[in-house]
Amino acid sequence: MQKLEQRFNIQYAFPVYFVRNIFNGEEQLLASLLLQAGEKRHKILCIVDSGVMDMDPALAGRIEDYAAANREVMQLCAPILTISGGEICKSQPAVIESIVRHIHTHHLCRQSFVLAIGGGAVQDGVGYAAAIAHRGVRLIRMPTTVLAQNDAGVGVKNGINAMGRKNFLGTFAPPFAVINDFSFLDTLPPRQQRAGIAEAVKVALIKDNSFFSYLEDQRHKLAAFERRPMEKMIHQCAALHMHHIGTQGDPFEFGSSRPLDFGHWSAHKLEEMTGSMLNHGEAVSVGMALDSLYSHHIGMIGEDDAQRIFTLLTDLGLPLYHPALALMDASTALHEFQEHLGGELTITLLTGIGSKKEVNRIDTDLMKRCIKELAHRFSGRNEVADHRPDRFAPHFSVLN
Amino acid sequence: MQKLEQRFNIQYAFPVYFVRNIFNGEEQLLASLLLQAGEKRHKILCIVDSGVMDMDPALAGRIEDYAAANREVMQLCAPILTISGGEICKSQPAVIESIVRHIHTHHLCRQSFVLAIGGGAVQDGVGYAAAIAHRGVRLIRMPTTVLAQNDAGVGVKNGINAMGRKNFLGTFAPPFAVINDFSFLDTLPPRQQRAGIAEAVKVALIKDNSFFSYLEDQRHKLAAFERRPMEKMIHQCAALHMHHIGTQGDPFEFGSSRPLDFGHWSAHKLEEMTGSMLNHGEAVSVGMALDSLYSHHIGMIGEDDAQRIFTLLTDLGLPLYHPALALMDASTALHEFQEHLGGELTITLLTGIGSKKEVNRIDTDLMKRCIKELAHRFSGRNEVADHRPDRFAPHFSVLN
Repeated sequence: MQKLEQRFNIQYAFPVYFVRNIFNGEEQLLASLLLQAGEKRHKILCIVDSGVMDMDPALAGRIEDYAAANREVMQLCAPILTISGGEICKSQPAVIESIVRHIHTHHLCRQSFVLAIGGGAVQDGVGYAAAIAHRGVRLIRMPTTVLAQNDAGVGVKNGINAMGRKNFLGTFAPPFAVINDFSFLDTLPPRQQRAGIAEAVKVALIKDNSFFSYLEDQRHKLAAFERRPMEKMIHQCAALHMHHIGTQGDPFEFGSSRPLDFGHWSAHKLEEMTGSMLNHGEAVSVGMALDSLYSHHIGMIGEDDAQRIFTLLTDLGLPLYHPALALMDASTALHEFQEHLGGELTITLLTGIGSKKEVNRIDTDLMKRCIKELAHRFSGRNEVADHRPDRFAPHFSVLN
Repeated sequence: MQKLEQRFNIQYAFPVYFVRNIFNGEEQLLASLLLQAGEKRHKILCIVDSGVMDMDPALAGRIEDYAAANREVMQLCAPILTISGGEICKSQPAVIESIVRHIHTHHLCRQSFVLAIGGGAVQDGVGYAAAIAHRGVRLIRMPTTVLAQNDAGVGVKNGINAMGRKNFLGTFAPPFAVINDFSFLDTLPPRQQRAGIAEAVKVALIKDNSFFSYLEDQRHKLAAFERRPMEKMIHQCAALHMHHIGTQGDPFEFGSSRPLDFGHWSAHKLEEMTGSMLNHGEAVSVGMALDSLYSHHIGMIGEDDAQRIFTLLTDLGLPLYHPALALMDASTALHEFQEHLGGELTITLLTGIGSKKEVNRIDTDLMKRCIKELAHRFSGRNEVADHRPDRFAPHFSVLN
């Protein structure tokens, strides 16, 4: 027997910008990014979330004007492609196929650009199409929701739903650049704003005690979506996500490294059970309440810390309970969570505000008692009144 | 404007083994590889090329016996899945979907294994399915053709055909391990053996003068597919491919780094034009003859070197011309080649035996005269007699 060893490193680097009014004539960020990629007229396929286009029909004109004003470095190689936002774009193969077909028809190559403007689902779906066409066309993400700006958009994953499962297909594919334009948030509905705040609470809880204190201090302003604290929250949450991915040694999750998940095993199941009537952030809020209570009952955090978490979530207008929780089979939900991430079951619990511990076993009887206690304490408070599926439902982090 | 920078490295490493009779009861390589991945019973989905199964119907039984004998480290989580070999498996979405569905139905996770036994097309198709399911299930490649063992199988790509284009969809996804079992070659038809030898000539021509001399010395034995020189040729060709990928600084081809291609721009078009009646190796042989002659006529190599190349290809039984060449539009073929690889046109020419130069411009009039000269000198010699599509047609390196 003979043996050869292959071994190499791939270096990934991408910038994440925080700006306002990116397609305002004065803002030169996008043009200068393209110029850095080479002094030529770069081909760009621009894809916009239908939800964003509905809220801001003038966007298409601004993009076209911007491209015309910067024609020496960019060329919109096709009319702007509008695709359905929310889970639709990730669940209908025809949407992904239309993107791939555009890449083919308009002769994009591996060094052309796809510009994805939209929520987390659009980022996931467009990112997937861009990653597999020609084994990867360059992707510039322009996330338009709080959750996409502070979480999925700054990460390295994409995905679509298949076999009836969220994100069953996907790749790890770092973007070329991410541009978080806060002005997209000006027209974002309250539920989507809150969903993004929930993600920040999650990161603070498992990573950053002082960020949690900041969120506590600012919670009434955040509940009113005041611009300054919202932008600071998004920046810090994005920075924590990026730091986690960049420094934990396993950004592509080959081994036992886990994504930044807390409260996610039940959140995922709740999204599934409610047909996305709970959006991801809302489901994570319920999941965090549940796993915080469980962390308390197994003696890992005190009553006071648990109460701080409940108060923050409540004051932010986020739900701490949903009736679907009582119907959930915890064993199945845990098993599915394990299967998607691979390896043995790993659930993140809290040992304090800003510190976590991963455990490999969950006492499902105790978990059921925690669910009952949540129902008793929080049923009817901040419960999501609008039970129509949230068409923005940004992404399914649990499977990220 | 604020900015964050993400930056991280991913380390890839995988072994490539050269063995015989891998599923012989004594050979412990596969079992020990799995044991290294963890002391547990690893889930394996085994997928076999129908062409391989046809040639060796007892293979399924040997695999099952092997799994049973090593049940403490491996579990065939589903009956062995046989898929159509050749381009069929890469062109029919149903084949890829069946693999993905098996991964779903049989609950494979990111740390489970897909074992792909087959030619280059099966490696490409199965590799693609394994790469996108759960964002990547571990892949063990067991290539069964000369070409897959000395080229595609030891590389880092996968791909399927879409939009009428070869390998239009794919990813870069290094395998977990590659096992080149020479015993699969014992029943490989002559055309497939020769196709793999053509790839070795290509690598020798652009990389390794002494390997070219070895191929010249052994050409009559290679033309008779004698075991020893064939195995040595495969090992050296694989080693050169791996060295190129591992040391050229851009294994995933983000920038201007090119795959190891010579004679490939026309080879690809010939495969397309002949509906794979020429297999990849045969088409590359014609493409090499063409680009060698062109290299000579622009003064980059001498008449003697060109003649050595023509003699070697001829004596190996490989074609140096095909009638489709006269019908080919060189400009279009060059343009399509450029588009798939991205960036500007880059064509590899020879400056000697074992040394290459990349050029960005081709004189299409001269190229047409070279085609006429090839027709005059080599038409009818070693031309592929069997004009049925080659069902093994292993892969489309030109788009790799």
